[in-house]
Amino acid sequence: MRQYNIVATYSLLITMTFLQEVVDILLAYITESFDRETKVIDFHYPNELLQRNNWELQDEPETLDDILISCRATLKYAIKTAHPRYFNQLSTGLDMVGLAADWLTSTANTNMFTYEVAPVFVLLEYVTLKKMREIIGWEDGRGDGIFSPGGAISNMYAMLLARFKMFPEVKEKGMSSVPRLAAFTSEHSHFSIKKGAAALGIGTESVICIKADESGKMIPADLERKILEAKQKGFVPFFVSATAGTTVYGAFDPLIAISDICKKYQVWFHVDGAWGGSLIMSRMHKWKLDGVERSVLKLTWNPHKMMAVPLQCSALLVREEGLMQNCNQMHACYLFQQDKHYDLSYDTGDKALQCGRHVDIFKLWLMWRAKGTIGFEAQIDKCLELSEYLYNKIKDREGYEMVFNGKPQHTNVCFWYLPPGMRYMEDKEEKKKRLHKVAPVIKARMMEYGTTMVSYQPQGDKVNFFRMVISNPAATFEDIDFLIEEIERLGQDL
Amino acid sequence: MRQYNIVATYSLLITMTFLQEVVDILLAYITESFDRETKVIDFHYPNELLQRNNWELQDEPETLDDILISCRATLKYAIKTAHPRYFNQLSTGLDMVGLAADWLTSTANTNMFTYEVAPVFVLLEYVTLKKMREIIGWEDGRGDGIFSPGGAISNMYAMLLARFKMFPEVKEKGMSSVPRLAAFTSEHSHFSIKKGAAALGIGTESVICIKADESGKMIPADLERKILEAKQKGFVPFFVSATAGTTVYGAFDPLIAISDICKKYQVWFHVDGAWGGSLIMSRMHKWKLDGVERSVLKLTWNPHKMMAVPLQCSALLVREEGLMQNCNQMHACYLFQQDKHYDLSYDTGDKALQCGRHVDIFKLWLMWRAKGTIGFEAQIDKCLELSEYLYNKIKDREGYEMVFNGKPQHTNVCFWYLPPGMRYMEDKEEKKKRLHKVAPVIKARMMEYGTTMVSYQPQGDKVNFFRMVISNPAATFEDIDFLIEEIERLGQDL
Repeated sequence: MRQYNIVATYSLLITMTFLQEVVDILLAYITESFDRETKVIDFHYPNELLQRNNWELQDEPETLDDILISCRATLKYAIKTAHPRYFNQLSTGLDMVGLAADWLTSTANTNMFTYEVAPVFVLLEYVTLKKMREIIGWEDGRGDGIFSPGGAISNMYAMLLARFKMFPEVKEKGMSSVPRLAAFTSEHSHFSIKKGAAALGIGTESVICIKADESGKMIPADLERKILEAKQKGFVPFFVSATAGTTVYGAFDPLIAISDICKKYQVWFHVDGAWGGSLIMSRMHKWKLDGVERSVLKLTWNPHKMMAVPLQCSALLVREEGLMQNCNQMHACYLFQQDKHYDLSYDTGDKALQCGRHVDIFKLWLMWRAKGTIGFEAQIDKCLELSEYLYNKIKDREGYEMVFNGKPQHTNVCFWYLPPGMRYMEDKEEKKKRLHKVAPVIKARMMEYGTTMVSYQPQGDKVNFFRMVISNPAATFEDIDFLIEEIERLGQDL
Repeated sequence: MRQYNIVATYSLLITMTFLQEVVDILLAYITESFDRETKVIDFHYPNELLQRNNWELQDEPETLDDILISCRATLKYAIKTAHPRYFNQLSTGLDMVGLAADWLTSTANTNMFTYEVAPVFVLLEYVTLKKMREIIGWEDGRGDGIFSPGGAISNMYAMLLARFKMFPEVKEKGMSSVPRLAAFTSEHSHFSIKKGAAALGIGTESVICIKADESGKMIPADLERKILEAKQKGFVPFFVSATAGTTVYGAFDPLIAISDICKKYQVWFHVDGAWGGSLIMSRMHKWKLDGVERSVLKLTWNPHKMMAVPLQCSALLVREEGLMQNCNQMHACYLFQQDKHYDLSYDTGDKALQCGRHVDIFKLWLMWRAKGTIGFEAQIDKCLELSEYLYNKIKDREGYEMVFNGKPQHTNVCFWYLPPGMRYMEDKEEKKKRLHKVAPVIKARMMEYGTTMVSYQPQGDKVNFFRMVISNPAATFEDIDFLIEEIERLGQDL
C-alpha cells in the first residue's frame, strides 16, 4: 500500500509509476470519448451524485490507490466534451496536440507575469499575438494584446481601455471625474458587455441596446439614432461593441457600416469575435468579418471555441502599443524590477488586470504548428459545411421550423421541433405555450439517455428553440443525421 | 512520417502513441527537475532565445515528430519551477498528485459555468469551499465563494462586492449614483487593491494607504485616523483590505484590531490571504490569522501558493449567501435556462465575472484527498521551519543584515548581503548606493549559472534586498545552506 508522503516529494520510482497509471486512465477515457457507442454523459441529479461516491475532504491522507479510484469516479460522471455527438457549447472536441500541450503546460507550472519565470511562453505569446494581428490586417502586425481568462474578461478589458483612452484621469480619480458614459451593443450581444459595465462602475443602464434585424445583426441606423439620443441626454458615447458571431444566432454585425458611424461620432469601436473571430482564418468565410481591421482599439478572439483549443484560450488584440500598459500598470517593484539584466518589455504582467496569469498560449501555439494556418482553415470550413448540411436537411422537413430565415452565417442552426401532435394546432397561443416546453423535455431526455447534447433557449419573444452549434472537428454528417433522428425519437410523443 | 491530420481526429493508435511519447518527455523533465545536479534555468536573453529555435507560425502543418521536437525545445528553455532550489516566487514546487489532477482536468476539458457540463467539478467546488469556510470558522461552513483566475481578481471581486453591498444601485446606475468612496489598505499590501480600484471606476486616489510598522504590519491607529480624515473630506469609507501575509515581508496585519475599527465605522472588512491564508491549516501557525473569522464579507486564499497546488488555484470566500449572485448576475437565458430538469443552484456561472471559467478545483481537491488536512499542515509547517532555519543562520552571520528585526511570521526572510569590500564603508550614502546594485548583479549571475533563483526588490526607502520565500515542499536544509553559499560565491567580488 503506497501511502502519500505528506511532506516531501515521493521517490522518483513511485512518482513515475503513479503518473503513468493516471495517464493510462486518461488514455482509456479519451478512447471512450471518441467512441460513438459510449454515452456522452452518465447523468445524475446533484443530490444523487453527491451520494454516489464519497467526495468529502478528511483530515487523514488516502492511499495512492484510493486516489486512482477517485480519478476514475470523476471521469465516470464527467461529461465527454470530446464526444462527436456533444454539441452543447461553443467549445467542444479534444485536439490531441492541444491536449499534449496542456499537459506540458501543467508540468512546466509557471506564470506569465515575467520573462524571468516563463521565458519561452512569453516569447510564444509575443509571436502568436503578432501573427493574429497580421491576419486581422493591422499594418505589419503592429499593436499589443494579451491572453485573458475568457471572452467576458477580454470584453471587460476592451471597455476598460476605451474608457481610459478617452479619459485617462479615470485611473486615478475614478468615475467621479468623468461625464456620464454610454456604451452601445446589439440586443443579441453577449451578456458580458453589461456585466463588464456593472463591474467597471459604468452601470448597466449606460449600456444601450441596439436593435437587431430578423437574422440577429445590429441595425446601423438604430445605432446612429441611439448615439444621437444619448448625446442629447448628456451622455458621452465612448464604446461600441459589435459582435462577430453572436452567441445564439451566430450573426455577424455589419462591421464596416458600424465603424463608419463610430468614426463619425468618435466612439471607440470594439469587435467581440469570441465566437466568430476565428472565421478570419478561412478564405471562404472571412468576408463575414470585413471591416474588422477597422476596429480602432481592439478585438476579442477565443481560439478555445471555433479553433477547438482546450479551455481556456481567449485573446484580446489591441491596436495601440503601450495603451494596456498605461491603463493597468501599478509598477509593483517586487515583481517588475527596473534593474533586471534583460529587456523589460518582455515582462508583460503590469499590463494585465491579473497579477499571476495562467499559461494559455502553448496549446494554441503547438496546435498552430501542427496544423498550420491551412489546418485551422480546413477545420473551420468543415464545421461550417456540417452546419449547412444540417440547415439544408431540416429547413423544409416536416416538423421543423427555422427561427430565422436564410442560411446561417456561422455554425449556429436555430430551430423548433414540433412533435406530430402539435403540428396542426390552431390555437396559436396554446401552441406557443406547448412548444416552449418541448425543447427542455427533449434535452432532459437526451441527458438521461446520454446519447447527445444540444443547447436550447428562448430569445426575445421567441419561445424555447434548439441552438445547434458545431465546433467539434470529430463530428461527421452521420452525427448530424443522428441528432435529427434522436430529436424525433425523444420528442415524438410530446 | 506522421503528418497531422488537419481536419478529423487521428486514428486512435496514432493518438495514443503520440500522447505516450509526450508523456515520456514530460516524465523525463520531471525527473530532471527534482535533480539538484540540473540547472534551474538555461537562461538566454529574449533576442537570443528567439533565434535559438524556429518559433514562427506557418501556413503549412508540421509532422508529429517536429511537434515532439518543439515540446523538447520548450522544456529545454523553461524554468524548472519544481527544482528544490527555485525560490523565486510565492508559487514553487510540483506536487505529483496536483499534476495528475491537472492532466485529468485538461483531458476532461470542460467549463465551470453550469452543472450540466461539469457535474463533478461543480460539486467538488461546493464541497471544497464549504470545507474552507469551516476551517475559517464561519458557522456551519455557511456562505459562498468561487475559484477565480488568481488573487488579483479575487481581491477585485471583494471590492466589487463591498461596493454593491453598500450601494446596490451601483450595478445599474454606475458610480455616478454613489458618493465618493474610500478604500483602505496598508502601504505593504498587494498592488492588486489599487489595480482593482482603477478598473472598478473607484480610482487609485481613493485607495488610502495606511502606515505599516517596522515589520510590515498595518498600524490600526493610523487606519482609524485615516478613516476619520476621509469622512471629514466627504468620502464614504466602504472597504478595508487587511493583508494576511504581505508579499514582501510576509507580515500579518492585526486582524482583530482592524475588524474592531471596521465594525465601529461600518466599513466592510476583507482579508487578502492570498499568500498567508493557508497558515490557517497549521495548528502551530494559525494564531497569526486570529480575527479572520470576523471578515464580515470575504477572504482571498490562494492554494496555488503556500499549499503548492499547481497554478492557478485562488479562492474567494464570501460570508453572505446570495451576495455574489445578486451583484453579478445578468440572467443570460441561453446558458442559465430556468426550466432545466435539475437543481439550478448548482449553475454557478451567473455569480462570476467570467462567463466560461476554467476548472481550477480538481487539483486542490485531489491533493487534499491524498494528503489530508494534516498533510497540508505538515507541508506548511516544514516550509516555515526551513525559513526559521535560514533566519537563524544569517541573522548574526558576517556580511548579512536583516531588513526588519525579529523572526519572520511567514516564510519570507528579507536580508541584505554585503560583499566583503563593502562591510566597513564609512560613507553611508555611498554604501547604500552600492548595496542597491548588489542583489541585481547576484541575481543575474544566479540566472546565468542557473544554480538557484531568489527574488529581490527595494521597499520604500530601503535599497534592493533579497526576499527569500519557501513554498516548495521539495526544499531541504541543505538547499538553504546551498543558497547562502551561492550568494557568497557570486557576490564576494562586488
